[in-house]
Amino acid sequence: MDYPNTHHQDPGAPVRSGIPEHGRIPKYYAVKAHLAELLGELAEGELLPTERDLAVRYEVARDTVRQALRELLLEGRVRRQGRGTVAAGPKLEQPLALASYTEGVRRQGRRPGRNLIGLERFPCPAGLAPDVGVEPGAPVWHLERVLLADNERVGLESCYVAVDRVPRLDVDFEPDSSFYAYLSEEVGIGLGRAGERIETVLATPREALLIGTPPALPMLLMHRWTRDVTGRPLERVRMLFRGDRFSFSTQLGS
Amino acid sequence: MDYPNTHHQDPGAPVRSGIPEHGRIPKYYAVKAHLAELLGELAEGELLPTERDLAVRYEVARDTVRQALRELLLEGRVRRQGRGTVAAGPKLEQPLALASYTEGVRRQGRRPGRNLIGLERFPCPAGLAPDVGVEPGAPVWHLERVLLADNERVGLESCYVAVDRVPRLDVDFEPDSSFYAYLSEEVGIGLGRAGERIETVLATPREALLIGTPPALPMLLMHRWTRDVTGRPLERVRMLFRGDRFSFSTQLGS
Repeated sequence: MDYPNTHHQDPGAPVRSGIPEHGRIPKYYAVKAHLAELLGELAEGELLPTERDLAVRYEVARDTVRQALRELLLEGRVRRQGRGTVAAGPKLEQPLALASYTEGVRRQGRRPGRNLIGLERFPCPAGLAPDVGVEPGAPVWHLERVLLADNERVGLESCYVAVDRVPRLDVDFEPDSSFYAYLSEEVGIGLGRAGERIETVLATPREALLIGTPPALPMLLMHRWTRDVTGRPLERVRMLFRGDRFSFSTQLGS
Repeated sequence: MDYPNTHHQDPGAPVRSGIPEHGRIPKYYAVKAHLAELLGELAEGELLPTERDLAVRYEVARDTVRQALRELLLEGRVRRQGRGTVAAGPKLEQPLALASYTEGVRRQGRRPGRNLIGLERFPCPAGLAPDVGVEPGAPVWHLERVLLADNERVGLESCYVAVDRVPRLDVDFEPDSSFYAYLSEEVGIGLGRAGERIETVLATPREALLIGTPPALPMLLMHRWTRDVTGRPLERVRMLFRGDRFSFSTQLGS
């Protein structure tokens, strides 16, 4: 099998389509490179040939095709639809800004949503206390929600905040709405500075089940520490996004 | 096998250690949760028990232990050392700022380095032209380097820049040094605004070979578009970081 011509490849793509200089590449990867080219010609939602047809076309075993498709699936370039595999759309781009998830998704013309998993009240563990600005043992809320975009489950959010800052969270707050809008409009707390850290992790079985992803899908995990306008620690957030559906963008300036 | 007590877990950790509410969890994941607890007690570089010993301890097959260790390896919580597995240190934290890789690594007390893979000159493809501020077909450089921290290979960087901006790049520039320092000190080009996008991808066979990672390790990919102080497009960068060794941090403020 030959390899696709990569002279005019996108500058965001791996150099020489990722083929090592020694030229020996795994068969599945050659198939993946061909499929990536094929996907460039398909519109979102268009069906790929079956595994059987692809195995015949590239003269490889079906397991080899399956491995190539699995990587493309993990990277969000294809998705399953019924019994077939179709071309996926581009990843959503979430701005790194003190805007809520709601705003970020809306800006891309998608409909944001959130499904409540649970709202718990518990004594603050020592490790969390400095992040939410209370003494260990003081009551804190844990608000856990699945993040939606156009009704598709795309992430999972855990927000920890002291009960004394939002004592009526369990009665006032509409769990499908923006927590930051609630803070500013209902409670009168303005957001100040925040620190964020982003890493890639594998989904746990619980997370995979809640978000509906294949187990061990690479995820983007964002930690956020937010202060209010007076500089007092306000909340600690853990947001997990499907790595195959999301990217983060930021503007740096001088 | 029972599951570890997770009452006092870190707020950055998955809720209830990732165990689904229905309580049925894969055996490998229960082993992973136990190992994560064990790792909390080990210092960086300390040896884990052998696969055989772990299989006996948790009363599971060796394949089950292997799967748990594989996930911990992909997430950078353990690393191989000789024939054993040892506890890994924390991930490096790279600030999202218009600072070079060199500065970011130095701030964490690590020694940055770069190994030249290649410097090529070629006619600019149409897709790249707007990013580097030239007409298609004008000559551009592609500078490709492996990123090092304390001599460990941690990433791979591709930088594209027009030859007319840095005509002497092939003779003047020390490939182990900071390109941004070269631009400002030798060429007199100051950096202006930049846009960045971060996503998670799988390493290609070529990238895995150059960086020395297991194939299909989740990586953090950063795209960067930089303008000079006058606002003219300057460079397009593709930086790939080991997902098991890096995280990105940023400060948001109002």
